Amino acid sequence: MSLTFTKLKAEFRCINDSCGATYDLNEVVYECRKCGSLLQVSHDINALKETSGKEWRELFDSRLGSVKFPNTSGIWNKREWVLPHVQDSEIVTSGEGLSHLFHSERLTKHFGLGDLWIKQCGISHTGSFKDLGMTVLLSQVKHMLNSGTKIRAVACASSGDTSAALASYAAKAGIPAIIFLPAGKVSQAQLIQPVSNGAKVIALETDFDGCMKIVKEVTKEAGIYLANSMNSLRIEGQKTIAPEIVQQLEWNVPDWVIIPGGNLGNVSALGAGFEMAKELGLIDKLPRIVLAQAENANPLYLSYLKNFEEFSPVDAKPTLASAIQIGNPVSVQKAIRTLKKFNGIVEQASEAELSEASAKTDLFGLYNDPHTGVALAALYKLRAKGTIAKGEKVVVISTAHGLKFTEFKLKFHEGKIPGTDPKLANVIRSCKPEVGAVMDEIGKFLNSESALNLKDIL
Amino acid sequence: MSLTFTKLKAEFRCINDSCGATYDLNEVVYECRKCGSLLQVSHDINALKETSGKEWRELFDSRLGSVKFPNTSGIWNKREWVLPHVQDSEIVTSGEGLSHLFHSERLTKHFGLGDLWIKQCGISHTGSFKDLGMTVLLSQVKHMLNSGTKIRAVACASSGDTSAALASYAAKAGIPAIIFLPAGKVSQAQLIQPVSNGAKVIALETDFDGCMKIVKEVTKEAGIYLANSMNSLRIEGQKTIAPEIVQQLEWNVPDWVIIPGGNLGNVSALGAGFEMAKELGLIDKLPRIVLAQAENANPLYLSYLKNFEEFSPVDAKPTLASAIQIGNPVSVQKAIRTLKKFNGIVEQASEAELSEASAKTDLFGLYNDPHTGVALAALYKLRAKGTIAKGEKVVVISTAHGLKFTEFKLKFHEGKIPGTDPKLANVIRSCKPEVGAVMDEIGKFLNSESALNLKDIL
Repeated sequence: MSLTFTKLKAEFRCINDSCGATYDLNEVVYECRKCGSLLQVSHDINALKETSGKEWRELFDSRLGSVKFPNTSGIWNKREWVLPHVQDSEIVTSGEGLSHLFHSERLTKHFGLGDLWIKQCGISHTGSFKDLGMTVLLSQVKHMLNSGTKIRAVACASSGDTSAALASYAAKAGIPAIIFLPAGKVSQAQLIQPVSNGAKVIALETDFDGCMKIVKEVTKEAGIYLANSMNSLRIEGQKTIAPEIVQQLEWNVPDWVIIPGGNLGNVSALGAGFEMAKELGLIDKLPRIVLAQAENANPLYLSYLKNFEEFSPVDAKPTLASAIQIGNPVSVQKAIRTLKKFNGIVEQASEAELSEASAKTDLFGLYNDPHTGVALAALYKLRAKGTIAKGEKVVVISTAHGLKFTEFKLKFHEGKIPGTDPKLANVIRSCKPEVGAVMDEIGKFLNSESALNLKDIL
Repeated sequence: MSLTFTKLKAEFRCINDSCGATYDLNEVVYECRKCGSLLQVSHDINALKETSGKEWRELFDSRLGSVKFPNTSGIWNKREWVLPHVQDSEIVTSGEGLSHLFHSERLTKHFGLGDLWIKQCGISHTGSFKDLGMTVLLSQVKHMLNSGTKIRAVACASSGDTSAALASYAAKAGIPAIIFLPAGKVSQAQLIQPVSNGAKVIALETDFDGCMKIVKEVTKEAGIYLANSMNSLRIEGQKTIAPEIVQQLEWNVPDWVIIPGGNLGNVSALGAGFEMAKELGLIDKLPRIVLAQAENANPLYLSYLKNFEEFSPVDAKPTLASAIQIGNPVSVQKAIRTLKKFNGIVEQASEAELSEASAKTDLFGLYNDPHTGVALAALYKLRAKGTIAKGEKVVVISTAHGLKFTEFKLKFHEGKIPGTDPKLANVIRSCKPEVGAVMDEIGKFLNSESALNLKDIL
């Protein structure tokens, strides 16, 4: 294959279609200077269309098994769709993407589906899907530095996965990272990843919104580049989840994709990826998308109940799915647009529902974080309602590794999450170190409901 | 390619060459019934040799990009070398293997090497390299069940990565798992993975050796299959690390491979993989191997100092590298044989050395567990001595994800590990939420040694 891509280019474009202002990707700009809306990265779709769907599929398939840099990244093996101008020497990668599509016949049968896959975005360098966006952001920063833009550091406000991914990729790039967080509300344990990766972590005597305000001020003036999700570069990385899924399914499209959402950048990214794959002829239809919210932080669910005719922020209450505890999502307009295009649904999950969904599916060998629990709870509920029909094919996006949520798992199995089924809590049993006593204990287990639930072939 | 592999077969063989007893892989046997030695899986090497090295390379390369089951596993895409008789329907996989070879030009330069790669075996389904062996063990159990062997459960004694991997893969297979651990010495937090995956976790009122004794007794009689590392099936999975590394390096062989070791099964597996690749003509030389031990649990290091002429178990002292706190390693004879064949070296690392090595390399974007810290400390020491020469090419095996070791990271950055350089500890700074005060703080950081250490292109 000898495709040439010299004509490809991308730019920032205002998401407000009636404005439509555009900006060079090398500009330091996060919101439209004309109308204040968010920006998105816009590709020259006509230039991309000079390559046929079949050629794109063959190109991407040829790179999937390649051990050559940068094809060992699931972002940069689709680089023409991401940032076509970035040079090899500018790419900051830790092998993100290419995550496994977990499949279990027993789990598929448990849900009464035709097929169920869990897209394991959390089995990654820093343990969450945030790596997908950060490789793009840091690579573009390196490109800007090479182009003469003065950037002294990258910064974000976050106490979770975003700060972990930013600090790791910044360290890989050799670029200082600065993390802002509300003092007294976040422990060192929550921040030990960015602390380990050498980021400057600053605790501000304010709340999270106060931190966002400061990071926006600081990044306006000081050669410090903003890495929060309002920077749409990150979407370009997360977008690749969609073509990667259909590629792993031999270019077949599932009936449904379920994704948890708080700030709602990720569902927009997922939609953008599928739309691009369809527009460029790699697939011939779109899946339906389910956006799953925690009931304690459900502004989009409430809007969905009114057919998206209005949207009101809510005061988000604490939820075990802490990363999506957001009452006023920054990407809500993008998300609503996506859900309308994808004949989408919004579902919600209570604390008990998300915890039980996570615990039940762990019994099939998964190890789910609470956000994936929200998505799986939505699947249980939509199957019960019949919205997702028997025999359909579903992909659930898992956003983080359960290893980041030991406390959540402990709390569940210690029976400390109200409203959950105590039979699902697994406990450690004590026993004398004698073969007879041990065999008694084993016998009880093997004849118990919990062991029978596990068994399928014995 | 139309290779046929109907003749391939494998069996258990006693590692004691003067005994040489063999057993069918479907037999429930862990130690030689004639002489009591450990067993190894022995392949019909002549049958394997009917396929040339070039054909093997092409076959394996053709599978690397394949999305078809079971090639999405780094074990089963090399199935002829692992368990050739296992059928598709018997394979229990969660997408293990295929882990990224992390590469950083800055880190390579930091060590003064020609190339340095970190093989990220810990970025995996359960967060450690143990997945590689457990997929093989559970698949063989399913094969045995299909062949009529009566197995009611799988069991191991372990409080760490082994129990997590066993419970997860057993749950995936639908086979009950039983975990034994010493009561009062292990917290639920350490066991929350197997607890979540529905294993029966039994706390015995004894020490770890007492647990091993019970599990060996129980698995002798009761249709309960032993999954501890003396079961050599696990080695067959771990063995694939070696061909996978050289495949990722386009079938080039690094000068050195460094691996941490406690019970010493893993270094034997690594050696077996390289030997098989050489014997079958995929590579034309072997790397040198460094086995890295914690100074607090260093019996093989002490033996190495005496040219392996004698070996004495030690009382292992507590080490941050808790998984290799083993004074009397079960696979010591296999390991010594491997190190002799590979012109190997044993190096040791103190608690301060392993902690500093981990912390320093985290500043390049890694997030190392303490065992990888032991391996990296060995690299620092061997570079300082000149044993590993400037410009050489090195692969370090990372065995677990840092997310499993939050306490270790916290302890380091809180300055609680004696003898470590306080300048390496990163702390969270408090600040008023005012742009001026924040900019002062940022300015101090950007001009500080810690930020300068990160920078390479600004």
